[in-house]
Amino acid sequence: MFRPLSRQCAIAMRRMAPGPARAAGIWCRREHTQASFDWKDPLNASTTFTDEELAIAETAESYCQERLLPRVLDAYRDEDYDIKILEEMGELGLLGAAIKGYSCAGVSNVASGLITRAVERVDSGYRSGYSVQSALAMGGIDQFASPEVKEKYLPGMAKGKIRGAFGLTEPNHGSDPGSMESVARPHPRKKGFYVLSGSKTWITNSPIAEVLVVWAKLESTGKIRGFLVDRSMCPPGTLETPPIKNKNGLRASITGMIQMDECPVPEEHMFPEVEGLKGPFACLNSARYGIAWGTMGALEDCIDRARTYALERKQFKGNPIAKYQLVQKKLADATTDAAYGILAAAQVGRLKDEGKAFPEMVSMIKRQNCDRALVNARALQEIFGGNAVSDEYGIGRHVANLFVTQTYEGQSDIHSLILGRAITGLQAFC
Amino acid sequence: MFRPLSRQCAIAMRRMAPGPARAAGIWCRREHTQASFDWKDPLNASTTFTDEELAIAETAESYCQERLLPRVLDAYRDEDYDIKILEEMGELGLLGAAIKGYSCAGVSNVASGLITRAVERVDSGYRSGYSVQSALAMGGIDQFASPEVKEKYLPGMAKGKIRGAFGLTEPNHGSDPGSMESVARPHPRKKGFYVLSGSKTWITNSPIAEVLVVWAKLESTGKIRGFLVDRSMCPPGTLETPPIKNKNGLRASITGMIQMDECPVPEEHMFPEVEGLKGPFACLNSARYGIAWGTMGALEDCIDRARTYALERKQFKGNPIAKYQLVQKKLADATTDAAYGILAAAQVGRLKDEGKAFPEMVSMIKRQNCDRALVNARALQEIFGGNAVSDEYGIGRHVANLFVTQTYEGQSDIHSLILGRAITGLQAFC
Amino acid sequence: MFRPLSRQCAIAMRRMAPGPARAAGIWCRREHTQASFDWKDPLNASTTFTDEELAIAETAESYCQERLLPRVLDAYRDEDYDIKILEEMGELGLLGAAIKGYSCAGVSNVASGLITRAVERVDSGYRSGYSVQSALAMGGIDQFASPEVKEKYLPGMAKGKIRGAFGLTEPNHGSDPGSMESVARPHPRKKGFYVLSGSKTWITNSPIAEVLVVWAKLESTGKIRGFLVDRSMCPPGTLETPPIKNKNGLRASITGMIQMDECPVPEEHMFPEVEGLKGPFACLNSARYGIAWGTMGALEDCIDRARTYALERKQFKGNPIAKYQLVQKKLADATTDAAYGILAAAQVGRLKDEGKAFPEMVSMIKRQNCDRALVNARALQEIFGGNAVSDEYGIGRHVANLFVTQTYEGQSDIHSLILGRAITGLQAFC
Amino acid sequence: MFRPLSRQCAIAMRRMAPGPARAAGIWCRREHTQASFDWKDPLNASTTFTDEELAIAETAESYCQERLLPRVLDAYRDEDYDIKILEEMGELGLLGAAIKGYSCAGVSNVASGLITRAVERVDSGYRSGYSVQSALAMGGIDQFASPEVKEKYLPGMAKGKIRGAFGLTEPNHGSDPGSMESVARPHPRKKGFYVLSGSKTWITNSPIAEVLVVWAKLESTGKIRGFLVDRSMCPPGTLETPPIKNKNGLRASITGMIQMDECPVPEEHMFPEVEGLKGPFACLNSARYGIAWGTMGALEDCIDRARTYALERKQFKGNPIAKYQLVQKKLADATTDAAYGILAAAQVGRLKDEGKAFPEMVSMIKRQNCDRALVNARALQEIFGGNAVSDEYGIGRHVANLFVTQTYEGQSDIHSLILGRAITGLQAFC
Repeated sequence: MFRPLSRQCAIAMRRMAPGPARAAGIWCRREHTQASFDWKDPLNASTTFTDEELAIAETAESYCQERLLPRVLDAYRDEDYDIKILEEMGELGLLGAAIKGYSCAGVSNVASGLITRAVERVDSGYRSGYSVQSALAMGGIDQFASPEVKEKYLPGMAKGKIRGAFGLTEPNHGSDPGSMESVARPHPRKKGFYVLSGSKTWITNSPIAEVLVVWAKLESTGKIRGFLVDRSMCPPGTLETPPIKNKNGLRASITGMIQMDECPVPEEHMFPEVEGLKGPFACLNSARYGIAWGTMGALEDCIDRARTYALERKQFKGNPIAKYQLVQKKLADATTDAAYGILAAAQVGRLKDEGKAFPEMVSMIKRQNCDRALVNARALQEIFGGNAVSDEYGIGRHVANLFVTQTYEGQSDIHSLILGRAITGLQAFC
Repeated sequence: MFRPLSRQCAIAMRRMAPGPARAAGIWCRREHTQASFDWKDPLNASTTFTDEELAIAETAESYCQERLLPRVLDAYRDEDYDIKILEEMGELGLLGAAIKGYSCAGVSNVASGLITRAVERVDSGYRSGYSVQSALAMGGIDQFASPEVKEKYLPGMAKGKIRGAFGLTEPNHGSDPGSMESVARPHPRKKGFYVLSGSKTWITNSPIAEVLVVWAKLESTGKIRGFLVDRSMCPPGTLETPPIKNKNGLRASITGMIQMDECPVPEEHMFPEVEGLKGPFACLNSARYGIAWGTMGALEDCIDRARTYALERKQFKGNPIAKYQLVQKKLADATTDAAYGILAAAQVGRLKDEGKAFPEMVSMIKRQNCDRALVNARALQEIFGGNAVSDEYGIGRHVANLFVTQTYEGQSDIHSLILGRAITGLQAFC
Repeated sequence: MFRPLSRQCAIAMRRMAPGPARAAGIWCRREHTQASFDWKDPLNASTTFTDEELAIAETAESYCQERLLPRVLDAYRDEDYDIKILEEMGELGLLGAAIKGYSCAGVSNVASGLITRAVERVDSGYRSGYSVQSALAMGGIDQFASPEVKEKYLPGMAKGKIRGAFGLTEPNHGSDPGSMESVARPHPRKKGFYVLSGSKTWITNSPIAEVLVVWAKLESTGKIRGFLVDRSMCPPGTLETPPIKNKNGLRASITGMIQMDECPVPEEHMFPEVEGLKGPFACLNSARYGIAWGTMGALEDCIDRARTYALERKQFKGNPIAKYQLVQKKLADATTDAAYGILAAAQVGRLKDEGKAFPEMVSMIKRQNCDRALVNARALQEIFGGNAVSDEYGIGRHVANLFVTQTYEGQSDIHSLILGRAITGLQAFC
Repeated sequence: MFRPLSRQCAIAMRRMAPGPARAAGIWCRREHTQASFDWKDPLNASTTFTDEELAIAETAESYCQERLLPRVLDAYRDEDYDIKILEEMGELGLLGAAIKGYSCAGVSNVASGLITRAVERVDSGYRSGYSVQSALAMGGIDQFASPEVKEKYLPGMAKGKIRGAFGLTEPNHGSDPGSMESVARPHPRKKGFYVLSGSKTWITNSPIAEVLVVWAKLESTGKIRGFLVDRSMCPPGTLETPPIKNKNGLRASITGMIQMDECPVPEEHMFPEVEGLKGPFACLNSARYGIAWGTMGALEDCIDRARTYALERKQFKGNPIAKYQLVQKKLADATTDAAYGILAAAQVGRLKDEGKAFPEMVSMIKRQNCDRALVNARALQEIFGGNAVSDEYGIGRHVANLFVTQTYEGQSDIHSLILGRAITGLQAFC
């Protein structure tokens, strides 16, 4: 039913006549023409996507609505991430989809964003798991690892057979990773190897990852370097990845620590060229780009749920509450911010494809889209009144998730100051 | 260590010299004089409280901080409300504290508000359990039941030996209780009894309540009447109170439905005089008054937690993030709203004591204090960055709880329209 | 120095090599490539404009910065609109620029939006004068008048020799024009003529207009029809257009009433086909589209002014206040909203060019861009501290103007309800 | 008709039976009892005022509504302040009313706040003129001048015969007065005199003041000292006080500079004891306290005007727009903030009377009340739709004025940081 995203296949899909409308949850369609204003795509952003991109979006949405959505309620309640999800995504070619070669689909950055939006329309936690695999782990390897390492790991990661994680944040260093304490030094006994020591926290997928892209300071230079840690090479006691439980958001993703105690890594697993924060920031930038798309998907789902609830819920003389001005304003606000956010994300995607995107652009759309998704999701949650407290309406889950998206990969205020610095030329992190 | 709030005892406390400062969490103190600006009481609201009120507040705060706080993390995680809490509160005289007679403490409405604030400083769910017992169930009985019924139930409820609930909201009628479908008719077989049928939802404490104040339409008149349902009088199958699980807020309180199928109630358990929505609205009014106080307690705890975190968390050259302007602004905003909210709640309390409070005043403070508590709690949550996702910081719990307080007992927008009607003379519920 | 926008000329400009940077105030440039993040075009919207569009924007911006900017301070102080402005704009081909034929430039809707943005970067009042001439008066005639009438009036209007106004709003009917009281009936004495009676208010340019597009109900049908009133045909006492003075915004535009007392209009000046609100709403839609662009120009000017002030103003140890976090956040917020707003307006412009734009899209961008321009302009105004009160900083003028843009041509809340209706299918205007 | 506020008289008024309701604009009444919810005093703050305070408020309100209100439209249009106003206020005993002795009324700080609120209900500019005379000039002299100087000037100032100004802010030093450049040194030729040089800006009343309290650094010590400059002692060319025109707010007050070039001041006019910023900050604190009250008056007038407009303006089927939910919410929000702000200001007034108020409390109420007055006034302005642009509705004037109140005497963000410092113990002014 779902088609893999191999380049050829996507091109083939473009040639297909558009089929009948599928599941109700599908937002992106290959038809570019609207007969009238469509609240699901208010500014007709679809006209800016290629047929191939729309075909990819359809594949992703169909999978997410039909396979992910039914699992999310229990996953969130139980903090239980089903690792088969990555394999399923791999089969469809969704993982690392923007990477060229290494069995990856090599789609445009816009297409990649549309996938991310489709995943987060279901749940930000599922999107986090997806982003870590695709943008942070695979993306980091693709950008910085040696050709041999890429060949060795990327194809399996693209299939979802090898799961990846990304270790940058430390318990005492969140917004300020430059002060990290993790360290790499030559293996005291084993030639051709480094050993890593230190700990990382809030690491999505760490408990289930076979490979971990870890950033640490090379003791000899004091400079931050990137390492691909292969769990299968780590003797007992050198690498622990305990899960962190009882989160109040992103409960459908799995999060953990990375604790390294003289954990061995072959020299060729150190990223050869990149040094300092440039490396991790390039990876984060790529993940943040995805978050800008993803949170719009979550917001769109909130709109859909709130609209449906408002049309079905009747109070005072049997009027649906959708008829109330105060309800309509919330819907209008949210719909507008979603429409604007999609256009902005798409524009940055195009610029990325052309090599013209700057990190501050990504700061801008990551910050704004997370902020607006959160603000609007909260306003929409009010429409559910007391019923919002039931997790079956899904809206509370999105609100809790979106708060986390606002704080990770650059808390909103930090991105304000990154933008402020770009605008004024002055540093305000004091 | 904690002193019961019997009238005599409270008066005695007033005579005591102030003891040494207790737990760090105690905000109200009997000393009225500040040596300098105190962020815990920025506008020195304490000067408006009597010594007796302050003594009561200290008792309540000490209990809450020492006995409730240690239980809340697990209670929230597991959705597990410890029914011993009501007994403990009963021993201290906290339940129905503003009721005169019937073994209740008979304190001022301001003192009662200070208790509520102390409870919600720990958790809004605990406060909900407290409010339902005190304001809705005991308050309803005290205002509307016959003297015999009061004598029979109130003393046990004041001790927390008899637990109460309050059933107004129905699955299809939240903001609009006047359309309720529950019905009372004469018992078809048993003289001197009514039978109640219908269902109520989102009923705090229903699964653990021995007595339930339930509102239903008397079939013969079509008018809403109040009934005290005593679970011990209900044959199997006539009264079910299944819990509602998987809430995304107020998880430390227990919530359920009330399902009545020809559930028998003695005639003398029907509230004799009150008819229509006047009765339940009077009860709600009393509960809403408590919520206005309580949410300020929750907000104050958020301030305390965020301030502590900001002082301890260091980023960028070892500066505590409390030094950042964007952090300080959040703290200033929250502190201001808490200070204002307390003054407003206290003013309404004084007016209640003097019989001069109008329901719209309660709508005003319920709406505003819930809204501001929520808005500020969310802003303060940002200070925790990614760490906010860990439930051990407590801030996420307050945020999730406060959203629920904004929606129950009159969703914020509904109170806007109640106020709007009072201001303009025009009805806008369409 | 400025080049007229005739189609040929614009095409010619496209072929020219980009010249050196002109005045500091020029934001749009033909070079598409940014060397680094540019706060003036944060998401590089320029990449979506054609060379022709950029050339047109440059022409418009140069004119506005060099010819309009120096006049605006006095014009605003004195409520004095220089009618030569329309002639100057006409010489450059800026008036009715999107109209095909009739001596109009026939540029794309995006190019037309860029002109509007350039004008409003100087002042919303100047933009109002421009919009009324271009979108409402010329646009109305172009869409609805007979070919003969178009030929007679449009070329002179395109040159700015004939000034137009647009009369829809009445003293008692703003958001609800369908209830208008103005009426047209056959001339009692003069065959082939109608007479119009009634009054219109808040009519930009009415005191200086030679022709007025006026909407009135045809007495015989009760249907709203459009009329082109030619002042030169009106005997004394049949048409008065007194100015409205002492406005607290848009003071650089001229506003007045239209008072018609049996004012004669030839039958062929009645728009032949359009009936009901469809006509005026089509015109308004076109004007609103321009406002969505224009307000972004005003916001961009506010950003520019606030940034410059913040870099120059030094407080506390000689630091420019641009270094303060609270200042940087305001700049980041505003810059983001401007960038998003431009992308949205451009997208709707493209859809208009393709005939795919719906009125609700225009409601969305009109509402959002006005709202966000206003909110951000107000926040930026705070950066000026006490100095903001001086009109020489220009920021107070923009704030006052932008408030008016939010209320005219559909007050923000009304557009919320238009969107709400499109989203829910339910009408909430009660 | 208006009664002077001499202590005796006010006491006498307290004994009078309440008369019939006066002008519609009178908000404060001596009757404490509300028959039902009163949107003009939603939380019945009047119960916390003494009869004397209410009598004073009535006197002030009657004067303001009957004598100031009719003048304000022209005054604002023409930037023309009628200096007779101070004399009229002086006759009623309103000037420096909280000062004990020296022919001042010696009323409570709450009463003084009520006067301020009454004045600003008409116009913030009138209140500014009043505050400068009462709190800054007279207040400064009362707190810091020698007994002889007080005797010489205060009685005439209390009568409004001698007008005062207060010079602290300099062109380059607004939020940071400690860096002031004005300097005082011994008169080079005249024994017993200092000469002052430097310039002050944004000085309310400076062009019309006979005496000016000016702060300058004593050259010999580098410490800031206060001086009473008597214009009659200044030879031509030593003191210039040119007005600043073309303000976009507070246009009904007169503002100017103070330019001092070797301006002579007798030694006994230097405030004897106070040194550093403590002096001016004490004066500012007193003025800020008044602003907290005054802005609530302006907001209350906005509520009144918006409510009236909403009830009279009919759209869509003849419904008054007051029936719209979006309008009612704006009214509910504003009314709530006004009610809260009054309670907070009154509480600080009581604490001032008891000597228990701290400057941070004043920062809190000044910031919050200005912010909330402004935010709500802007929202209420939207109710007027396009008509808001006419100055005859008064709402635009309030909005423009309130923005200025937010920026002067401590811009809102600066007070955030003052509060932030008090809450965290850390300085963030960088």
